Amino acid sequence: MTTSTSNRGSNPIWAFIDANLRGAGQVMFMNNPITGALIIVAIIWGAVAAKTPEVAIGAVVGVVVGTATAMALRVDTASLRQGLYGFSPLLTGAAVPTFLGNSVVMWVYLIIGAATTTVVTLAISNVFNTWGVPALTFPFVLTSWFLMLAAYQFHQIKISSLTAPMLARPVAGTSLDLSAADLVTSMLKGVAQVFLIGNWVSGLIILIGLAVNSRWAAALAAAGTIVATLLAVGLKGDETSITAGLYGFSAVLTAIALGCVFYHPSWPVLVYALLGTVFTLFVQAALNTALAPVGIPSFTGPFVFATWLFLLPKRDLTPVPHHKHIDDGVLTGTHPKA
Amino acid sequence: MTTSTSNRGSNPIWAFIDANLRGAGQVMFMNNPITGALIIVAIIWGAVAAKTPEVAIGAVVGVVVGTATAMALRVDTASLRQGLYGFSPLLTGAAVPTFLGNSVVMWVYLIIGAATTTVVTLAISNVFNTWGVPALTFPFVLTSWFLMLAAYQFHQIKISSLTAPMLARPVAGTSLDLSAADLVTSMLKGVAQVFLIGNWVSGLIILIGLAVNSRWAAALAAAGTIVATLLAVGLKGDETSITAGLYGFSAVLTAIALGCVFYHPSWPVLVYALLGTVFTLFVQAALNTALAPVGIPSFTGPFVFATWLFLLPKRDLTPVPHHKHIDDGVLTGTHPKA
Amino acid sequence: MTTSTSNRGSNPIWAFIDANLRGAGQVMFMNNPITGALIIVAIIWGAVAAKTPEVAIGAVVGVVVGTATAMALRVDTASLRQGLYGFSPLLTGAAVPTFLGNSVVMWVYLIIGAATTTVVTLAISNVFNTWGVPALTFPFVLTSWFLMLAAYQFHQIKISSLTAPMLARPVAGTSLDLSAADLVTSMLKGVAQVFLIGNWVSGLIILIGLAVNSRWAAALAAAGTIVATLLAVGLKGDETSITAGLYGFSAVLTAIALGCVFYHPSWPVLVYALLGTVFTLFVQAALNTALAPVGIPSFTGPFVFATWLFLLPKRDLTPVPHHKHIDDGVLTGTHPKA
Repeated sequence: MTTSTSNRGSNPIWAFIDANLRGAGQVMFMNNPITGALIIVAIIWGAVAAKTPEVAIGAVVGVVVGTATAMALRVDTASLRQGLYGFSPLLTGAAVPTFLGNSVVMWVYLIIGAATTTVVTLAISNVFNTWGVPALTFPFVLTSWFLMLAAYQFHQIKISSLTAPMLARPVAGTSLDLSAADLVTSMLKGVAQVFLIGNWVSGLIILIGLAVNSRWAAALAAAGTIVATLLAVGLKGDETSITAGLYGFSAVLTAIALGCVFYHPSWPVLVYALLGTVFTLFVQAALNTALAPVGIPSFTGPFVFATWLFLLPKRDLTPVPHHKHIDDGVLTGTHPKA
Repeated sequence: MTTSTSNRGSNPIWAFIDANLRGAGQVMFMNNPITGALIIVAIIWGAVAAKTPEVAIGAVVGVVVGTATAMALRVDTASLRQGLYGFSPLLTGAAVPTFLGNSVVMWVYLIIGAATTTVVTLAISNVFNTWGVPALTFPFVLTSWFLMLAAYQFHQIKISSLTAPMLARPVAGTSLDLSAADLVTSMLKGVAQVFLIGNWVSGLIILIGLAVNSRWAAALAAAGTIVATLLAVGLKGDETSITAGLYGFSAVLTAIALGCVFYHPSWPVLVYALLGTVFTLFVQAALNTALAPVGIPSFTGPFVFATWLFLLPKRDLTPVPHHKHIDDGVLTGTHPKA
Repeated sequence: MTTSTSNRGSNPIWAFIDANLRGAGQVMFMNNPITGALIIVAIIWGAVAAKTPEVAIGAVVGVVVGTATAMALRVDTASLRQGLYGFSPLLTGAAVPTFLGNSVVMWVYLIIGAATTTVVTLAISNVFNTWGVPALTFPFVLTSWFLMLAAYQFHQIKISSLTAPMLARPVAGTSLDLSAADLVTSMLKGVAQVFLIGNWVSGLIILIGLAVNSRWAAALAAAGTIVATLLAVGLKGDETSITAGLYGFSAVLTAIALGCVFYHPSWPVLVYALLGTVFTLFVQAALNTALAPVGIPSFTGPFVFATWLFLLPKRDLTPVPHHKHIDDGVLTGTHPKA
């Protein structure tokens, strides 16, 4: 992955801005402030077009609060500068105003949530470092699931657009009469929905931002949303979700992560990434069913779970065999300390 | 943390009683048999006042069965003497008669549940030792969730006071007309609800028991229930839950754990513990929503999840960066064993 | 555990068949191609008798796809030959046609699911190797949960026999008027239900297949289904589930795993395995309640969770004590990298 190291001067204000821009880029694994800046532009464009500027403001507040919290906790400086403590809080900051009603309480909730997302980033990173895999956006997913679920229990935190808890049913078979133009805008929206933005122009800006740093990432993002959207259409998924780009965004992230970030691109890797991308779509559909009774969206959870499962396999792995007794089990042999 | 080491003589009966009393204290991190004895007194007081003496008997049976099971499994003797294998079974023993109907079957179920809680304590401790954090009360939470969920499937195990499975809805806005005296008793009940006791006198006895061993612990317990209760009132949570102390008990445990047990008290630690305590309230509200469709309470789960997330961050952590290829991945490089 | 090493010649076709037969045996921890062949016979017998031959075909396709995927990923050769990459995909292959409607799409879904199950086997093995315990059938359980949940969201994937999402209620008290013959056939079906087959003759064939490799395994399998079925009857569980053998199969696997596979048989081990088997029944009942709102079966999840909890306790374990400060916590001491 190309790494832009310019502009990392001694000016603390610019260094802070640089870390935050990289944080925006790191949602899509791009350690590049220009990519990050274009992503911020895309978020603002989409939020303003949808007349929900609070989503863009929330995203910016989120990344700033998250990065500042990391500084207050005196975390590893190199990771901080690369934006690794900013990207999950940015998403928490975008999610809260997307689903909860605008009020002073909501903004305080968002700031506490963004600060907590940084703590959770440190916690999840510690756990998953054990197996050499990253925390991905799980700190955002976990924290925001808590924040959304909790909103149901407090009258002062208003729910604006969560789907009320309900039991899932098999989706009805519809005609899915999509034109080629519908398909393309759905796919572009799929890219933008990584940031909870349902706007195809924003998706295009983000693809350009990716290409600035890595053409592989841009190509894989496009491939991810194309594969997931076409597969969802072919399997006759819910039309509203497809046209909103909601089946695309987790697949986009999986395709980039498996295809060029954590593995070098090659034919075997691309086949593996394709399987992982297809599986991401199934995990997303699965979480739609599983989370329906509790009234929260899956966020980027499908990307996280599928990508973890496809990154954890190691080449020198020897599973615990089924004929081996556990020597140090509580019932085995002598107890030296007893 | 002050550690009382007196009374640990060679008399095996007294040593067993001492380990059980410390087990009662260890629910709140106090390795002190006097604290444990006062906690048992508080449980008995509250259970008798509510005309549910079976809850107090269950708690005592739980800690004894749990400690005896640990002895039968010949576990680490030092931890056994400190009560570390008794505190989760004590809570399982209090929970079963609180929610299930009194019968011979229930008592057998409680004893099997308490013995299993010790096995689960060993299992969860093994897993979380990997990251240097304790199992906390998760063995109680996990085992008791299984026991409660299972009760729905067996006609011979009667459910007495679980809320039937239902989908959550946004909580209605009520006036919350609480007097200062209501608030204080709610807060004291919050302390007692750690042991599933809704009695403010019991809460006061427990605070005294804490102060015997650690004034910091007593002060933080009080602060935890004050912060959580006031915040729940301010956010307009469910009035019945607030006045029963149900929003206080997990916050109490988080405040003690983060504020003085696993970190030394200091201003940064107190700010961090405050954030953790506030987050505990959000996790508790979240679990109320998430567990509603399956008809079980959250127990001390909110404390466990929030405290784990706030203990896991380490100062020398370097997360897996987003530009690093996974060298030992299944698709990477040569396979030496193939 | 006896290990049959014959027939592992240099002929690659026979070696592949051998690995797949062992894969069938490894579902029940038997590294023996004859046991595996008898299990395949039992699956075919039961599937044909129920006029669902697609279940047997699915099982065979599953193990072959799973083993082939492992070869393509160039995994550890010894484990591959022992069938350790085939047993979970076999179960995925049996589960998909059991619950989803027969169609071309279903078969493609099954093949993708079986290949993914092998990836998930590698992932889960990596994680649980950390604590010296095996992945068991969790890769099957996890992947198949995703596949079943996802089916609700795609009109082209037809659900044939999943119970629609519903909230659990306390089970009604029925008379449970079972004859001795009913009980015996229920218990034998319990053995066969490991492979999603509700046929008592199949259960008998499987017991014979176990005895070929290990008389302890056969005896413990019988004991597991006897204990679980009698206990479910005694506690008045749902009669339809009991007579279909659905309360037996997870207990069978736990009894074998704890009683003679991962520990040497002895009196303490048998008592421990009995507690684990009883707990497995409770976990199964618990998952029935917990999964009802999302409309999926528990598969062998109860066996996995109970067996993990009973294998993880180690004799030299020292839990993190409650009086120890966390030295390397984010708020503790100096930050060398800051």
